Amino acid sequence: MTERIYGRRPVAEAERGRRRVHRVWRAPDTPADELERLCGSPDHQGVVAEVDPYPYADSSALLDAEDALVVVLDQVQDPHNLGAVCRAAEVAGAAGVVIPDRRSASVTPAVCKASAGAVEHLSVARVRNVADWLGYAKQAGAWVYGAAAEAERRYTDVDWSGRVALVLGSEGSGLRPRVAGACDELISIPLGGRIGSLNASVAAAVIMFEARRQRTSRHPA
Amino acid sequence: MTERIYGRRPVAEAERGRRRVHRVWRAPDTPADELERLCGSPDHQGVVAEVDPYPYADSSALLDAEDALVVVLDQVQDPHNLGAVCRAAEVAGAAGVVIPDRRSASVTPAVCKASAGAVEHLSVARVRNVADWLGYAKQAGAWVYGAAAEAERRYTDVDWSGRVALVLGSEGSGLRPRVAGACDELISIPLGGRIGSLNASVAAAVIMFEARRQRTSRHPA
Repeated sequence: MTERIYGRRPVAEAERGRRRVHRVWRAPDTPADELERLCGSPDHQGVVAEVDPYPYADSSALLDAEDALVVVLDQVQDPHNLGAVCRAAEVAGAAGVVIPDRRSASVTPAVCKASAGAVEHLSVARVRNVADWLGYAKQAGAWVYGAAAEAERRYTDVDWSGRVALVLGSEGSGLRPRVAGACDELISIPLGGRIGSLNASVAAAVIMFEARRQRTSRHPA
Repeated sequence: MTERIYGRRPVAEAERGRRRVHRVWRAPDTPADELERLCGSPDHQGVVAEVDPYPYADSSALLDAEDALVVVLDQVQDPHNLGAVCRAAEVAGAAGVVIPDRRSASVTPAVCKASAGAVEHLSVARVRNVADWLGYAKQAGAWVYGAAAEAERRYTDVDWSGRVALVLGSEGSGLRPRVAGACDELISIPLGGRIGSLNASVAAAVIMFEARRQRTSRHPA
């Protein structure tokens, strides 16, 4: 079964990515209303492609590298947030993203669009149970940090070297107790101002780039 | 003249913010289609408010504090990007955001929504000419950093203490030459992966929180 992705960057990244592109429709050869009908969205930017289903990664392979940084999203439901986190993860050099196979957005064409095509190059794995996967990650030698607004430990005061998993909760409600309990340590981003909350992809990026900063200053290019 | 903002958080933040709220309509007292008609958007989340015009700040006051961090956006046209940068700036504790009064998004109700209401607590100033304002900022004792993908200097290798301005360019085309020329120094975020670009608000947040990290580790709470 194939699916139809849309948008300039998502289609361009699929063309240099891992899944087979069967067919591409472009404006003006294909009229705009036909493109919208083909992909079911007005956000096609003049290009739609029929591609193989999204190639999910094997969750047990994500931690193979000894400095693998894996982002784990517990029940992020909004496709735009999932896509934006994937984009930030790809650009931050993360080894992959883990999502649960239920009560979570999956990598739909809308997520491909929100990720600017980053999902074509990023490993995204689905797991049955997030807390169980965190147990596996710890067995595999990873240190598991959970982001929690109320945590006293700052994200800048922990060691991001080696294998690490960064767990982020759903919009609004944070980490579920069993998931928080499966973390080695809870961390927070100290916030200023009055509104007191960051968008999920911004929070993920701030933490991932701190990890990247620490790693880069240890091993200068 | 008043304007109509919409969405749960934008209206809640306006109610505890600086501008006068004249009237609020809420579902189910007001039907959804009437709310949509009142604000001109389907994204009202059941609440619309009539408020005073957005209270822009005085651009010359933004650098008053001796550790003021001001974000300058050169021709960011997308309301979602402007709103998301404002949200990140408010939460990162920035002193304010400067935008040009032409060829830029202004603080419309769509920007209020995208900022999650952060603009109600943040100082946003409009200036006639961005390069001229950077000249003024330097006179006022600020160091001016421009974000440019091709810059060799890393954002983590510069000193973010004292008065600083961080200049970010428009989506896609970066800083205009005259604006880049008005910066003291150009900096970049070293990126991994293959897609090679961050969303504007994510880039702004990564840099602002590095500034915050440096400042916090110098002056522990």
